[in-house]
Amino acid sequence: MSGMYRVHVRVRLRPSILDPQGKATRQALRQLGYEALEEVRIGKWIELTLRAPDPAEAERLAEEAARKLLANPVMEDFDILAVETIEAVG
Amino acid sequence: MSGMYRVHVRVRLRPSILDPQGKATRQALRQLGYEALEEVRIGKWIELTLRAPDPAEAERLAEEAARKLLANPVMEDFDILAVETIEAVG
Repeated sequence: MSGMYRVHVRVRLRPSILDPQGKATRQALRQLGYEALEEVRIGKWIELTLRAPDPAEAERLAEEAARKLLANPVMEDFDILAVETIEAVG
Repeated sequence: MSGMYRVHVRVRLRPSILDPQGKATRQALRQLGYEALEEVRIGKWIELTLRAPDPAEAERLAEEAARKLLANPVMEDFDILAVETIEAVG
C-alpha cells in the first residue's frame, strides 16, 4: 500500500570497539552512586520517515540509506527494528 | 534471581524539539538521491549492564539513571525497551 512509513533503525558500535562516551557516562553514574553499573554502551536510534509504494520498499530504502550513510561500516552495526505505517494511500 | 542484566534505554528528542543533526542527515541523504525521505530524527540507544537482585530492580535502577543523567528532561523523552538477563545466580 503506497504511503508514508517510519522506519526505526538502531546503530550500535561493534562489541570490539571501545566506547569512550559510554565509559564517561558509566563513570558519571558510578559517581552518582550507581556502583552496580558494569558497562554503558551508547548507540543511535534513527527514525526515517519516507514515502514508498509499500512497507517492504520503505524498509529496503532505509536499509540502503543506513548502509551508505547512517552507519560506519568499520565500527558500527545496524538493524531495522520496525516499519511503522504513518499514512496509507489506496 | 540475582545476576547481571542489560537494560536497553531509548532516548528521543521530544516531537516539538528541532533536530538539527537529523535535518543535516536528511539533507545528505536527499543529495544521495533519497528524495522520498521526509524526515530524519536521531536519538540514542543506551545499553546499561548492571548487577541487581532481580530484573525488576535492574529496570528500576536504569529508569532512575535515565531520569537523572541519560535524558535531558527539558528536551528528551526516554523509555525502557527491554531487560535482558546476561547471567543469573542462585
